[in-house]
Amino acid sequence: MKYGIAIFPSKKVQDEANSYRKRYDPHYALIPPHITVKEPFETDEQVLESTIIPELKRIAKSTTSFSIKISKVSSFSPVTNTIYLKVDPSDEIVKLNQNLHEGIIPDNKEYSFVPHITIAQKLSDEEFSDVYGSLSMDSFDIVDKVDRFQLLYQLENGAWSVYETFRFGEQ
Amino acid sequence: MKYGIAIFPSKKVQDEANSYRKRYDPHYALIPPHITVKEPFETDEQVLESTIIPELKRIAKSTTSFSIKISKVSSFSPVTNTIYLKVDPSDEIVKLNQNLHEGIIPDNKEYSFVPHITIAQKLSDEEFSDVYGSLSMDSFDIVDKVDRFQLLYQLENGAWSVYETFRFGEQ
Repeated sequence: MKYGIAIFPSKKVQDEANSYRKRYDPHYALIPPHITVKEPFETDEQVLESTIIPELKRIAKSTTSFSIKISKVSSFSPVTNTIYLKVDPSDEIVKLNQNLHEGIIPDNKEYSFVPHITIAQKLSDEEFSDVYGSLSMDSFDIVDKVDRFQLLYQLENGAWSVYETFRFGEQ
Repeated sequence: MKYGIAIFPSKKVQDEANSYRKRYDPHYALIPPHITVKEPFETDEQVLESTIIPELKRIAKSTTSFSIKISKVSSFSPVTNTIYLKVDPSDEIVKLNQNLHEGIIPDNKEYSFVPHITIAQKLSDEEFSDVYGSLSMDSFDIVDKVDRFQLLYQLENGAWSVYETFRFGEQ
């Protein structure tokens, strides 16, 4: 099965991100707004239960709640036409991402970690110019608390379902 | 905020339910296939954290994994045109539903508990007759393991996001 690990921001931030995603993100219906902290990886449920989940519990237990800050949108252009709310790469979130790619957890990292909440993707070049031109003028003043991450798996229709929640500071 | 509690069946069962939901359920994009064990209720996050979550942990800890069986579809007609995979109302799932409406957890139960996975709803009368006529001829032989429930909250767009997972037998 294909698994991934994400942080879901608070309802307020999800609602704000969805106001853009509804119009500009074809993945809008597949998963709520999120920060991917581990890209999708393949494993079977037995390996997951016996080795990965105990490690995720350990990581969650040793992680302390932290704040994230979002002050602007950015884009992966020219690689892709994805537009996202840029999450300041604090030490805490970078460390969490690093922990999720070490030891017995598969290191499937292909790119350097750019914490973000996607709000638009798969736009035509013209749409991208319009939307990014407009959104990049906006400033955001979002501060949100992160106190858990979620392990998800992908269904055949592309949607993601939560397998388990890992709260920081808990075993 | 509006919260609810659901059981998500295994990927296999979710995929099967989605094959119907995609065509017949306008809530398809709002939440993966699920068994509602507590209907939506309003509370604030502070009450949730201080009183409800500790109780949900206690309930999860005292619950043992159980199997569910699905052998046919059924419908809430004539009350609504909802069609669902009928989950046999085993003692275990009935007890879990009961536990989630007792003590300090708000008792928001309006109907008797009919465990089910919705696969079609808000159909016109004509669509309903066609779809139910066809599906009610099918027999299902689904057995699935339940070992957790999930607390969800609803976003402004109607979609549900997972707040926390509660595994049975764990604190």
